[in-house]
Amino acid sequence: MSPRGRRPGGEDTRAAIVEAARGEFAARGYAGTSLRGIARAAEVDPRLVHHYFEGGKSALFAAVMAIPIDPATIIAGVVLGPPEGIGVRVVRTFLTVWDNPEVQPALVGLVRSALADEVLVSQLRDYVYRDLVGQIVAAHPHARTLSAAEQSLRAGLIATQMLGLVVGRYVVELPALAKAPVDTLVERIGPIIQAHLDR
Amino acid sequence: MSPRGRRPGGEDTRAAIVEAARGEFAARGYAGTSLRGIARAAEVDPRLVHHYFEGGKSALFAAVMAIPIDPATIIAGVVLGPPEGIGVRVVRTFLTVWDNPEVQPALVGLVRSALADEVLVSQLRDYVYRDLVGQIVAAHPHARTLSAAEQSLRAGLIATQMLGLVVGRYVVELPALAKAPVDTLVERIGPIIQAHLDR
Repeated sequence: MSPRGRRPGGEDTRAAIVEAARGEFAARGYAGTSLRGIARAAEVDPRLVHHYFEGGKSALFAAVMAIPIDPATIIAGVVLGPPEGIGVRVVRTFLTVWDNPEVQPALVGLVRSALADEVLVSQLRDYVYRDLVGQIVAAHPHARTLSAAEQSLRAGLIATQMLGLVVGRYVVELPALAKAPVDTLVERIGPIIQAHLDR
Repeated sequence: MSPRGRRPGGEDTRAAIVEAARGEFAARGYAGTSLRGIARAAEVDPRLVHHYFEGGKSALFAAVMAIPIDPATIIAGVVLGPPEGIGVRVVRTFLTVWDNPEVQPALVGLVRSALADEVLVSQLRDYVYRDLVGQIVAAHPHARTLSAAEQSLRAGLIATQMLGLVVGRYVVELPALAKAPVDTLVERIGPIIQAHLDR
């Protein structure tokens, strides 16, 4: 049992929030977890959770998964700007993050673990759908007007391509893909993502 | 040590060949393994290997991996026919095989294991490149005239999409993808494969 009462600020509080979030995500899944529930489990004021994790639930998920970036915050920036360039911007940013040697091992480890773990994969599934690919579809002026089922299908098709890129380039390390310059992959794959949005 | 001398025909011989192939693939990788080497390890006449495995090395690999079909033989059939329809035919055949409940558990199990196992993944990498995606590129009248590096890149891009489709639909089970009818996925993804070949 952890001691009762509000915790003091600082690193301990942040660590306690991350640990509480880990338990909540595991018990309730990504979709079923709330920031309020995490605050309750950590025995801290909900405002402290917002203070340490401005990106909210997705930022906490990144911290729990030991990803040294918050992908959702990055995507939120990328989708701003001309809608006809979303595909190219998404692929370029995505590859820049994954190619970063300080981030890549954590991301590759997460994908490897998730693909072998039913509970983890279900958390990631919700996270990728709602906070990553969902944001891309919701930011596109045409795609966001479509039915919920069609938006979901398009998010799935985009996820498929990005997932395959990750697994092919960083996990399986298919030779031509692992060595390809970012520019080449942006040029070949950007328009595919764009076409799923524009269609 | 196994007993010296030629083995008699029948199920024992077939099983001995598969076991010898398993050892050779593990020791030498997919690319480095020859049918002659497998015959030597199994202590049988090379003609017997061809007799039991008409599809050659790829058929033996499928047997070793406990895949109840030989994907390379299926692809060889699919790529015949009008080149402008290769993309659609590849995606339809691929999904039909993977959706088959008698085959799907073995394939999903193989992908899960491979992604967690460096040795297995390197065998699969060669197999997918040479005997699956490589066949598709080599069957297309435009793509097969390109430089080796460009053919390899295109094979990688096609592998990326198909790998993402497998992982998204059957391993992660992204909701919209797992439920999507085959026709829908053929219509959305077939043209992507085709564009990698035609470009």
